[in-house]
Amino acid sequence: MVAEKVILAYSGGLDTSCILKWLLEQQYEVICVLADVGQAEDMQMAREKALKIGASEIVVADVRQSFAEQYIWPAIQMGLIYEERYLLGTSLARPCISVALVEAARKYGAKYLAHGATGKGNDQVRFELCAYALMPELKIIAPWRDVNFCERFQGRQDLIAYAQAAGIEVTAKPATPWSTDANMLHISYESGVLEDPNVVAPSSLYELTLDPLTRAPRSSKRVCIYFEHGLPTGVEDLASSHVYSTPVEMLKYLNDLGGTYGIGRIDIVENRFVGLKSRGVYETPGGTIFYAAHQDLELFTLDREVLRTKQLLRDRMSDYVYNGFWFSPEASYVRQCIQLSQQHVTGQVTMELAAGYCRAIARQATGSSLYNKQLVSMDEHGGYVPQDAAGFIAINAVRIREHARAFGAYDKH
Amino acid sequence: MVAEKVILAYSGGLDTSCILKWLLEQQYEVICVLADVGQAEDMQMAREKALKIGASEIVVADVRQSFAEQYIWPAIQMGLIYEERYLLGTSLARPCISVALVEAARKYGAKYLAHGATGKGNDQVRFELCAYALMPELKIIAPWRDVNFCERFQGRQDLIAYAQAAGIEVTAKPATPWSTDANMLHISYESGVLEDPNVVAPSSLYELTLDPLTRAPRSSKRVCIYFEHGLPTGVEDLASSHVYSTPVEMLKYLNDLGGTYGIGRIDIVENRFVGLKSRGVYETPGGTIFYAAHQDLELFTLDREVLRTKQLLRDRMSDYVYNGFWFSPEASYVRQCIQLSQQHVTGQVTMELAAGYCRAIARQATGSSLYNKQLVSMDEHGGYVPQDAAGFIAINAVRIREHARAFGAYDKH
Amino acid sequence: MVAEKVILAYSGGLDTSCILKWLLEQQYEVICVLADVGQAEDMQMAREKALKIGASEIVVADVRQSFAEQYIWPAIQMGLIYEERYLLGTSLARPCISVALVEAARKYGAKYLAHGATGKGNDQVRFELCAYALMPELKIIAPWRDVNFCERFQGRQDLIAYAQAAGIEVTAKPATPWSTDANMLHISYESGVLEDPNVVAPSSLYELTLDPLTRAPRSSKRVCIYFEHGLPTGVEDLASSHVYSTPVEMLKYLNDLGGTYGIGRIDIVENRFVGLKSRGVYETPGGTIFYAAHQDLELFTLDREVLRTKQLLRDRMSDYVYNGFWFSPEASYVRQCIQLSQQHVTGQVTMELAAGYCRAIARQATGSSLYNKQLVSMDEHGGYVPQDAAGFIAINAVRIREHARAFGAYDKH
Amino acid sequence: MVAEKVILAYSGGLDTSCILKWLLEQQYEVICVLADVGQAEDMQMAREKALKIGASEIVVADVRQSFAEQYIWPAIQMGLIYEERYLLGTSLARPCISVALVEAARKYGAKYLAHGATGKGNDQVRFELCAYALMPELKIIAPWRDVNFCERFQGRQDLIAYAQAAGIEVTAKPATPWSTDANMLHISYESGVLEDPNVVAPSSLYELTLDPLTRAPRSSKRVCIYFEHGLPTGVEDLASSHVYSTPVEMLKYLNDLGGTYGIGRIDIVENRFVGLKSRGVYETPGGTIFYAAHQDLELFTLDREVLRTKQLLRDRMSDYVYNGFWFSPEASYVRQCIQLSQQHVTGQVTMELAAGYCRAIARQATGSSLYNKQLVSMDEHGGYVPQDAAGFIAINAVRIREHARAFGAYDKH
Repeated sequence: MVAEKVILAYSGGLDTSCILKWLLEQQYEVICVLADVGQAEDMQMAREKALKIGASEIVVADVRQSFAEQYIWPAIQMGLIYEERYLLGTSLARPCISVALVEAARKYGAKYLAHGATGKGNDQVRFELCAYALMPELKIIAPWRDVNFCERFQGRQDLIAYAQAAGIEVTAKPATPWSTDANMLHISYESGVLEDPNVVAPSSLYELTLDPLTRAPRSSKRVCIYFEHGLPTGVEDLASSHVYSTPVEMLKYLNDLGGTYGIGRIDIVENRFVGLKSRGVYETPGGTIFYAAHQDLELFTLDREVLRTKQLLRDRMSDYVYNGFWFSPEASYVRQCIQLSQQHVTGQVTMELAAGYCRAIARQATGSSLYNKQLVSMDEHGGYVPQDAAGFIAINAVRIREHARAFGAYDKH
Repeated sequence: MVAEKVILAYSGGLDTSCILKWLLEQQYEVICVLADVGQAEDMQMAREKALKIGASEIVVADVRQSFAEQYIWPAIQMGLIYEERYLLGTSLARPCISVALVEAARKYGAKYLAHGATGKGNDQVRFELCAYALMPELKIIAPWRDVNFCERFQGRQDLIAYAQAAGIEVTAKPATPWSTDANMLHISYESGVLEDPNVVAPSSLYELTLDPLTRAPRSSKRVCIYFEHGLPTGVEDLASSHVYSTPVEMLKYLNDLGGTYGIGRIDIVENRFVGLKSRGVYETPGGTIFYAAHQDLELFTLDREVLRTKQLLRDRMSDYVYNGFWFSPEASYVRQCIQLSQQHVTGQVTMELAAGYCRAIARQATGSSLYNKQLVSMDEHGGYVPQDAAGFIAINAVRIREHARAFGAYDKH
Repeated sequence: MVAEKVILAYSGGLDTSCILKWLLEQQYEVICVLADVGQAEDMQMAREKALKIGASEIVVADVRQSFAEQYIWPAIQMGLIYEERYLLGTSLARPCISVALVEAARKYGAKYLAHGATGKGNDQVRFELCAYALMPELKIIAPWRDVNFCERFQGRQDLIAYAQAAGIEVTAKPATPWSTDANMLHISYESGVLEDPNVVAPSSLYELTLDPLTRAPRSSKRVCIYFEHGLPTGVEDLASSHVYSTPVEMLKYLNDLGGTYGIGRIDIVENRFVGLKSRGVYETPGGTIFYAAHQDLELFTLDREVLRTKQLLRDRMSDYVYNGFWFSPEASYVRQCIQLSQQHVTGQVTMELAAGYCRAIARQATGSSLYNKQLVSMDEHGGYVPQDAAGFIAINAVRIREHARAFGAYDKH
Repeated sequence: MVAEKVILAYSGGLDTSCILKWLLEQQYEVICVLADVGQAEDMQMAREKALKIGASEIVVADVRQSFAEQYIWPAIQMGLIYEERYLLGTSLARPCISVALVEAARKYGAKYLAHGATGKGNDQVRFELCAYALMPELKIIAPWRDVNFCERFQGRQDLIAYAQAAGIEVTAKPATPWSTDANMLHISYESGVLEDPNVVAPSSLYELTLDPLTRAPRSSKRVCIYFEHGLPTGVEDLASSHVYSTPVEMLKYLNDLGGTYGIGRIDIVENRFVGLKSRGVYETPGGTIFYAAHQDLELFTLDREVLRTKQLLRDRMSDYVYNGFWFSPEASYVRQCIQLSQQHVTGQVTMELAAGYCRAIARQATGSSLYNKQLVSMDEHGGYVPQDAAGFIAINAVRIREHARAFGAYDKH
């Protein structure tokens, strides 16, 4: 009998290495796929490890450019942010990785997809919904939802023992008392000591950003970010006039710079799609700078009422992406709508970076602008007739006066 | 003939002093009302000045406690923020001041209300809508919308000349090349050199906050903010364990502390209700800290779906308040709805303050909490059955698979 | 060993009779609960049948008054409607029935709840979410999701054979080629011949309403419906001046009258919560009349902007109720918010009923009203200054003109 | 001195004839524009009348096709409806007429635009906002907001006296005690005896529709309406198989048919943009049938979550159109978004027309459909695994159970 082929989303770490071994024990042929989304992982070592354990193949898919251009860039353009603070670093990587997984499934003719995401988290949802959207016939194996697997591996110690028995190399690096997910956009930290939301995260946790209090520079730095239709097209170091102009370069530059300044740390309790509240600490240095710059330019360039509608759509899209619905009818639709709104979001924003924060301090539209210096000036009319405001207010007051007439004038509160 | 009585919203400055004189010239009897909302103004000098010019009466209304308790506190509870960045410092003061103006109108039997707000701004709308709501029969005199007044006073120089001719003292303090509005919650800066949104605001502009780069402390500071039903009930200096517990004290403490740390500066282009885009720089040190703390606790304590609805209502309420509809059927209604949502927003948040920024780093609910450490833990089930997630995902995928069946599987983008 | 107790949501029909028998075979002790929500069922016969099959107890819970007062009345007050057409007749009954089921579970100390809802439908979700909310420790038995049960009973014939073998009386009434759900508010029809959405529903299907074309009266009829705070408080037959004044009476009267006139039939394809599209035909005679009357009075009595927010909340609430979240944090919250909006929805609406439709033709508020005949009259000013409208329009045009200035005047489309 | 040219939106009636005369008295040169939007007006007689009064030119612009194709058709596609009942017949005509007015202004080099809309209504806003958007430099003359004009003409009698004195023919037709606005889409009735919202509109009022009780046919009629991307592309008389296929033909056919059946009458109190509540009676026979058919097909063909977002946008667009913002940044934007949603709204709906109402009774998508008979069938699985629903429900219950854990199980209400 020919073994069924499984694509395993492989990371090189302890969990997916044990899962690889366990899948082999279940008589599957396993093709590992390791998607490089910019995490600092030794891909060569991971490759060798997988083959040594028994993978029939390991595909290292460098999707960094695709991740930047087709996931992070649209997210910046759309202004995505979950629950007003989380910039969706992990959520955006999942569909990108899923594309690589599904491509491998098609190439190798695999019917199964296995992943190491836990049964309480969002990532299982994201991987599986993406897989169903891209290749509906795919079957999922989620060991951390498998009763037998869960009984066998009740904690990290069980995994280590299993690995050692199977000759799987267990990394010398001592495990941190939290779990992390890293990519080009961010690193997230959760679980372990972070599970008590009233305990301050240890300062040793942060990997992408320097401590703004003790290690960041004392002086500030200015960069100019250029946008076309809401998409970043250039980042200029205003000191050197050097301009970074590909998404990967821009992101790397602002990640490095933002990291040096300790920008983009957040510590939140968020709502998972599966109904739990979970504490997460995130570092998103470059993403934070891009988000703030885009927000500033958008408010500067969009008509007020267009902006109101766009923000409603943005809130919906942020939920879709967090919940795993990147590939869905609603996300496709809303994404197109939001992109339509960005037609005039073209211009540049000067950002000031300092230890622990950044902010927009100047901005300019390319070409025509809805900002009208003459119109707003206290010293000229610019076509605005102040007397009109009296009628504007009086008519806006009609409902208020009618309410007062019918139900009494407002009291103080 | 008995002169008609006018209530003049008086500030003590050049504009309203000239308006006072001008109203007297129009044969009105003028009662000046100077509302103390915490601006750093010499009330005694303003009083004398008004009487000297010819006001029949000047009322200095100390509304600071009311401003804190009945406007700022609800705004914190509701999480109000305009266009995602402006904490509504001026917008909230206007209804509070309007109450004082209307109280004087009632007390003195005045039929008219005069103010010095310009014809292009939001404040004229706010003052007048509030006045109509509180005392619908009041008539408005807005000199900056009066054609004769505007022709006579075409610039600051005309006002100065008029004042000097009338023996009105013109302040020795040289005018800044921008205009400001100050109160307990914030100082705003606009106009003048700020009218070019691509020119960086001068560092000399900021009055409430020290320069985070050059003058703020190097070390961070932690405070704990306590909330009941979304309202701040205490601020604890964690170093000294001293707790501030009245709104006025809490606000003063966090304003001073936030000011020292240079927290709460923003520089934005915003959409005015009258249809213009306008550039504003704001300093809101204490308000920024309260906002961030409340946001953190709210996300921690509210059910996800309740939060989604509350935020929609919050966005509407922020627009109502910015636009001047504090006293309106819709604001009364939405405010009640938002307050209902805050029933369980009770607990404490630890805030870290550092030069230029603050952030929540720990939080705790008082009493029962929707955060469930057992439930979210990777090491225990806590009543959650991971296997259920498979069905959850499969059913969520039904629509996605149906879409793929009908219109083809999703391609990558 | 003592048998575990199960509460079975029993209908007296073939499905739940077979489920009862099957549960007994699985060694459960079964307490049947038959909730009377106004369906035309012979309760006594059902009682005897259940006992004969082997139920240890059968509880006939007459929840008609509770259904009317605590579910239908709030739904009318909130204006609930799903996907703009479905008045939620079944969705509202489920939480009401669930309360009866849970009360029985508590009374008899049962740990299990069984129901006959299918695995593709909404009702399983509604029953189970309500049960979890009311008695979180309850365990669910859903035979139509049980693999063994489903294999054994693959169609109606298997159920009939099983029933006959077990001596369960199979109703003489031939089965309709569709399934129905009936209660005080509506009858729904789905499945069978209705599964082809392009086939017109047979005219023999309708049970609650007469054919408006062939059997309804030729003349129209007027009734007046009275509301307080959005809740119906009386229905007056304008011909006889008789007033019906309890919810149960009012509903019965308008169901009978609306049924005679053939009012309230809809034929739709709706979106189920589990992701399917499903075709349903519904008859809701009284509910349709109440809905239209309330809608009319609400628009008449509510401030425009309050209405806008209320309708947003109404749309959310309609989804919550359809999806089974009657007892949930979000439904509790939004329901309170909507009720707040109804403070002034007090008055009366004259409805014209005719064959196949009804419509509001006159309305009046009790006490003060936001409708102001003087204000709207073309013949008087009523305090409105027409000249103000010029300024109102001019200021509203600012954004439009600015857009034209920046990006060109609008072309025709 | 050369007289300034004014474009007058001329109707041929008493008001605009007097305005024409009055403008001539003010020394303007007046070019009358009479837009034919399908109102039953004698265009030739109106032409002669205008010239006789003294218009230097009269342009009769036949915009019926443009009205149908570029205003009514998009409105059907978008599902526009104001306050859930009004199909926007007048609101849609105003931008169409404004285009004709502005074209004349450009052709004749006129700087002024005059209209006969009142100062309390919506139409002044619609005409003027459209004019500003299309030709920002145009100046508006609104006699009904002119103090002198209003003083001179305080009622209909003053107009008649003025007309008679000026030799303007006053129509023999006795004035109705209400005002009307008619076009291809609807007739509206307001003012006069309708100002008391509790007085039933007289049955003699209706012009477009026969009395459904006394004059409509007893038998029903079926038509099939075809849509592509949400736009009607054909209406088939199912009895004769005749298909109408241009917008003008389709609209005429359904207006005639719907009129015969007395379909599309509503009687509402609506909220005007200027803050008043106003009572209106409307007849929209064809539009009502199109609306219901489109609504049915849209729900049938759209993904649930896409529909949810589309309806939010629809509600906003309906307000924009009612308020006069057809040509505005927000309407342009939202219209594009809604059109994107209609990609798959292609198919046909069978409508049953009967005296007083119509309803969808069958529907079919062209090509692929999200409706899946196999999936929803009670007799087959169609790829749906009923067991998955258990997990779906359990995970959806997590938040509900957590709320019960923290704050107690739900009580009954």
